[in-house]
Amino acid sequence: MEVVKTIAELKDIVRKVKSEGKTIGLVPTMGYLHEGHMALAKAAREENDFVIMSIFVNPTQFGPNEDYESYPRDLERDKKIAESVGVDVVFAPSVEEMYPTDGGIRIHAGRQATILCGASRPGHFDGVLQVVTKLFHIAEPTRAYFGQKDAQQVAIVTTLVRDYNFPLEIRTVPIVREEDGLAKSSRNVYLSEQERKEAPAIYQALKLAKEEFLNSKDAEKAVQKAKDYILSNTASGRIDYVELLSYPDLKPIDEKTDQFLLAAAVYIGKTRLIDNIIFSK
Amino acid sequence: MEVVKTIAELKDIVRKVKSEGKTIGLVPTMGYLHEGHMALAKAAREENDFVIMSIFVNPTQFGPNEDYESYPRDLERDKKIAESVGVDVVFAPSVEEMYPTDGGIRIHAGRQATILCGASRPGHFDGVLQVVTKLFHIAEPTRAYFGQKDAQQVAIVTTLVRDYNFPLEIRTVPIVREEDGLAKSSRNVYLSEQERKEAPAIYQALKLAKEEFLNSKDAEKAVQKAKDYILSNTASGRIDYVELLSYPDLKPIDEKTDQFLLAAAVYIGKTRLIDNIIFSK
Repeated sequence: MEVVKTIAELKDIVRKVKSEGKTIGLVPTMGYLHEGHMALAKAAREENDFVIMSIFVNPTQFGPNEDYESYPRDLERDKKIAESVGVDVVFAPSVEEMYPTDGGIRIHAGRQATILCGASRPGHFDGVLQVVTKLFHIAEPTRAYFGQKDAQQVAIVTTLVRDYNFPLEIRTVPIVREEDGLAKSSRNVYLSEQERKEAPAIYQALKLAKEEFLNSKDAEKAVQKAKDYILSNTASGRIDYVELLSYPDLKPIDEKTDQFLLAAAVYIGKTRLIDNIIFSK
Repeated sequence: MEVVKTIAELKDIVRKVKSEGKTIGLVPTMGYLHEGHMALAKAAREENDFVIMSIFVNPTQFGPNEDYESYPRDLERDKKIAESVGVDVVFAPSVEEMYPTDGGIRIHAGRQATILCGASRPGHFDGVLQVVTKLFHIAEPTRAYFGQKDAQQVAIVTTLVRDYNFPLEIRTVPIVREEDGLAKSSRNVYLSEQERKEAPAIYQALKLAKEEFLNSKDAEKAVQKAKDYILSNTASGRIDYVELLSYPDLKPIDEKTDQFLLAAAVYIGKTRLIDNIIFSK
């Protein structure tokens, strides 16, 4: 496995790989890899001839009061993990390498970024679209891999690729779960023993709400059912949002909606956990 | 020469051409082709194995009070001209084909679009960036051709490609001029006989200003010289702007500036004409 730090080096590799007619899978990450990233890389490995993983803590997607400086970084550990899942090239550029010039052009995510997790993170998804656009143009992937865990991110990136005709496919990799259904997350370690026991209620609630909606077609009732379940089954639960929206447009559902996103953000104690289900009628 | 109306058809052609290792030149136009477009197509023909010309009157770059509906269209005539200069494929999609969905994501041109011609056309360059991004992703050109006549447009598109790492090269084709130096433009036909005699003063003024600046290094003096020349040598001239800026950033010049844009917009009677010179120290 090779580790490259410059755009020019990666473009040379990409040119060679493409000239051989090979497919490229891109796994964009901010590093500090966990099982979620490994699932993305494994999917990329299965479906492509060549796998590029980018490791870049992108400053433009952090707000002024967010944890850009303290975001965990461990490239040596990440390299070993990337190699273990069959990554061919790790692309780990510096901030200066990624943003050497700035003519002031910006991509604005628009309506989709104003709801769910975006409501409390203005500008976050604009920064995501900026960096993925650059990575897509540098790595020229056949397929790019994102985790369904960050459903709003996948929805917005999928919309970018659709509305701007990027010549690649977005592949959404299912949420990796603990045995009791809790979505895996780096943040789960912050949970106390009692909170850890309560946390799987989020996924249970989403499953109940999906069932309710498929039976009654009543979105409001379904969402309420999820909220009630979480509040009844956790001592420490505080709901940020539970929402049922069209996917990937993230609009209120109507008769024509054919794909649904049921998403929740819940504080269990002081830890904010997110989870979601994407489903069809 | 083939004429295709759908994105899917063009992408099939592009895939085939690229799989043969051939280079692609893209000439984006709004049709109603004139000598300027032909110069772009000829340059593309010389430098690439395969030439795609897009003909699409892009609604998103017209303001609400602009002439989108009345913009001249003549595809039959355009096809003949395109074929005569060696275009391989004309891509002439409908508005519905280009904009079937809208998730609300927008590219904002930023500071560069607020000056020169952009000052009176808010949103214009955002629309330009939207459509060229789509065309770049659909046609996957090795090189894309723009006329230096619209220097601000080339500057902003060049900045987009640079800051967002598009895997292609922007080629700027010099301004085509009449024998007396007047930049060719569809609008020149609106000039009266007397106005037509005065109009070359714009280019003369820019050349004088360039010379003044190279000698004195005094930008203000150079710009004033151009304005004075235009006012002294035209009875009907009214200056919209004459500006000396860095290129392609379009910022005020300083000691580090190595490429310069000297641009003018002048009303000759009721006709607004633009012209420019790009030069190095």
